[in-house]
Amino acid sequence: MTQLTPVAVLGASGRMGSEAVKAIRNSPDLTLVAALGRQDPLEELIAAGAQVVVDLTVPESTERNVAFAVEHGLHAVVGTTGWDEKRVAGLRTLLGANPGVGVLIAPNFALGSVLATAFAARAARYFESVELIELHHPDKVDAPSGTAERTAALIAEARRDARMPGSPDATQSARDGARGCDVDGIRVHSVRLRGLVAHQEVLFGGVGEQLTIRHDSFHRESFMPGVLLGIRQVGSHPGLTVGLDGYLDLQA
Amino acid sequence: MTQLTPVAVLGASGRMGSEAVKAIRNSPDLTLVAALGRQDPLEELIAAGAQVVVDLTVPESTERNVAFAVEHGLHAVVGTTGWDEKRVAGLRTLLGANPGVGVLIAPNFALGSVLATAFAARAARYFESVELIELHHPDKVDAPSGTAERTAALIAEARRDARMPGSPDATQSARDGARGCDVDGIRVHSVRLRGLVAHQEVLFGGVGEQLTIRHDSFHRESFMPGVLLGIRQVGSHPGLTVGLDGYLDLQA
Amino acid sequence: MTQLTPVAVLGASGRMGSEAVKAIRNSPDLTLVAALGRQDPLEELIAAGAQVVVDLTVPESTERNVAFAVEHGLHAVVGTTGWDEKRVAGLRTLLGANPGVGVLIAPNFALGSVLATAFAARAARYFESVELIELHHPDKVDAPSGTAERTAALIAEARRDARMPGSPDATQSARDGARGCDVDGIRVHSVRLRGLVAHQEVLFGGVGEQLTIRHDSFHRESFMPGVLLGIRQVGSHPGLTVGLDGYLDLQA
Amino acid sequence: MTQLTPVAVLGASGRMGSEAVKAIRNSPDLTLVAALGRQDPLEELIAAGAQVVVDLTVPESTERNVAFAVEHGLHAVVGTTGWDEKRVAGLRTLLGANPGVGVLIAPNFALGSVLATAFAARAARYFESVELIELHHPDKVDAPSGTAERTAALIAEARRDARMPGSPDATQSARDGARGCDVDGIRVHSVRLRGLVAHQEVLFGGVGEQLTIRHDSFHRESFMPGVLLGIRQVGSHPGLTVGLDGYLDLQA
Repeated sequence: MTQLTPVAVLGASGRMGSEAVKAIRNSPDLTLVAALGRQDPLEELIAAGAQVVVDLTVPESTERNVAFAVEHGLHAVVGTTGWDEKRVAGLRTLLGANPGVGVLIAPNFALGSVLATAFAARAARYFESVELIELHHPDKVDAPSGTAERTAALIAEARRDARMPGSPDATQSARDGARGCDVDGIRVHSVRLRGLVAHQEVLFGGVGEQLTIRHDSFHRESFMPGVLLGIRQVGSHPGLTVGLDGYLDLQA
Repeated sequence: MTQLTPVAVLGASGRMGSEAVKAIRNSPDLTLVAALGRQDPLEELIAAGAQVVVDLTVPESTERNVAFAVEHGLHAVVGTTGWDEKRVAGLRTLLGANPGVGVLIAPNFALGSVLATAFAARAARYFESVELIELHHPDKVDAPSGTAERTAALIAEARRDARMPGSPDATQSARDGARGCDVDGIRVHSVRLRGLVAHQEVLFGGVGEQLTIRHDSFHRESFMPGVLLGIRQVGSHPGLTVGLDGYLDLQA
Repeated sequence: MTQLTPVAVLGASGRMGSEAVKAIRNSPDLTLVAALGRQDPLEELIAAGAQVVVDLTVPESTERNVAFAVEHGLHAVVGTTGWDEKRVAGLRTLLGANPGVGVLIAPNFALGSVLATAFAARAARYFESVELIELHHPDKVDAPSGTAERTAALIAEARRDARMPGSPDATQSARDGARGCDVDGIRVHSVRLRGLVAHQEVLFGGVGEQLTIRHDSFHRESFMPGVLLGIRQVGSHPGLTVGLDGYLDLQA
Repeated sequence: MTQLTPVAVLGASGRMGSEAVKAIRNSPDLTLVAALGRQDPLEELIAAGAQVVVDLTVPESTERNVAFAVEHGLHAVVGTTGWDEKRVAGLRTLLGANPGVGVLIAPNFALGSVLATAFAARAARYFESVELIELHHPDKVDAPSGTAERTAALIAEARRDARMPGSPDATQSARDGARGCDVDGIRVHSVRLRGLVAHQEVLFGGVGEQLTIRHDSFHRESFMPGVLLGIRQVGSHPGLTVGLDGYLDLQA
């Protein structure tokens, strides 16, 4: 008989947390042993016998939650934001003192989005031109999206490493903003449209050809396959992993 | 036996003109009776027995060419730019004095592009959001494209007529240019990519749905079906028509 | 002060009906005066003072509901299926006896989908090639979709009227099904993919150019703008109208 | 001063060969030392001092050409088809006897196409659903395309390795061909449209999300960056490499 992995969720009543509770309950190889809200003491994780803790709380409490898990030998899958360099450095030290414990911090759990970004970074050096279009619902307050900023930065880095010049552009007269914004030398365009959720297209162009990598996120539940993949693999990845792509097999 | 329509081309050695000569020669219902360059006298049009004159010359000579045709009872299909309001007014007067003669001035002969613009204008009033993306080769010197400017202006006009507010947009913080440029209240984004020719996408968004109208122009020869359609129909459209959509049957 | 239009919904507890109740309540120019389930007597429509009745019930009851409305001088907007030729003929007779009453029967209330189909039919005669791709969630039991069948039939009709030959196709060896199915001479391809809802793309191709008309339906609520448009306009369209496009202004 | 690499082209008067001659001439790090047609003796390769031989001939002569190159210590970049298992085995034996010599056999030199296929194979195991659409000009005689067959086979292999079931599909009633053809368990749809050249879209779907990898080939010259990359790298890849992706850096 296969052993079920006992999993606990922190932030279980939040939007992401309640989706995670549902997804874990529907997974035949996992068993949900605790679903904690903000008032519940962390000691319940121990009492419940959790082996993996999923932290989907708020920036204010995530550092304390993860530290508690690591100190008690529990693996942690973290979707909460707020992990700046200082916090990450502290966590690395803590993990050094607790070998065998794994922590995954993932700013994005949508498998398709993580893959799209990874592929775009790998393709970046092989095309003369590259631009990025991100499309979101019109209630979004910032432009471009954080995912677009990260993708553009990775593309720019790959092109610098390959000593490539910027994408060609003969524009002499343009209306303000027509050519998008400049993220690290890469042109990024932000569309806002009622009906959309979160979408991104990376366009690569060479003589006579185009490569397009597009990701569409239609629902919040698109994050759950990534959360489950993290839960299943965190135990075999001791130490800190930042980014779900660290768990994906992207090689030939 | 069907009568062939005798056609003459002005500017026959130019890029568009030589394509037109080829297209006319390949059309079983047309016969090419004259192919004139800039040095050739216009009187040859009469001698050759042309009924339809295709003007694909330069802004400096198009006005004189069309006036000559109209005064001699020849229909004209005009792809040359440079027809400002003053010239158009003069031509209307001349056509008033020559009833039965037809002239088509078309800034764009690509059927797909003309249809895409016409459809976009008709759809404009039925969606909360609209934005426009145009994509061209990186040697283009202006942004956005003339076609994008015209399309956006027609969409804006249709929305004003229907007393619609602007597309919703909650953006509070943005990098310069991220949200594109503003053409008459419509957001337009210009992509420049090696490998592309001329492409345009109009995106309409409403609650839970999206309508996309896209046109791709891969080659200059895409203009020829529109030129042939103009040649065949100009005789049955006396007076001045501006825009190939005036000859298209877009109604139910 | 503007008069609010009093509206009643039949089938108010169904999936479409409950969305309609919500949409009417959120419309400042409409007032919901009755929301009836299957047990409620139709006489309540009169008592409530409804002027427009929205029928979102089942094929078994829709004919009786609409007849009741027409006989009492109420306009009707009908989204229920099951209106075969015989029923439609009966309704026309009834409307002849009740001049001034309007009925709209709409198989599809998604404005974008209705517009996409209308545009595709108008574009059909101007391109050498046309094919259709429809994409749906993988729980759909039939292929191709009803919307794809209708769109293909309208395209085929337009091309027959223009005496066009079939789309060119030099295929000599093919795996079974590679070239899609044949609907009235038009090739249609059905994609089934987890994550999707209902999407359709009509591809037109000519020498050197492509025109693409795509509609994405992400949610059931995408039907509500069309339902509201029907409610607002049914009073000024006496007699029977089949298809929401009859209410759309698609002309220049 | 940098040494220029001396390159020879076999099949220099063919369509691919003449493009290659042009591309090599335009490359500042390469020098064209021989451009041979079918009548020219292979000994000219030696006399000209070639270090890299590009074979763009016909299936009948490619085996002899490559053997000659390897035996004389020249690296070879091969775009000719016809390399079945027996020929490949013979070549491996020959290369074993000539260590240090590199041969690249590439069925496809379009970088974007090679990358798209490689990415699709890597993404295959992470999505519940996958289908493939390939779009070509209507003069193509086979369906689906060879590239689509290869891509589907690689996706199928990756999914078998990960012990995944087939893509979900509840279709019960369908017109013949609606759901495309079956290549190794993967659904493939072939579109034929005037105006197109060669295009492919791999669609991956999961709960709430979609990943699309699309490649467009607009011109034959799109193969040249891949040919040049092969010429530059074949010297540092001794032995046989099949597929241009063996030279691409696709890892993190």
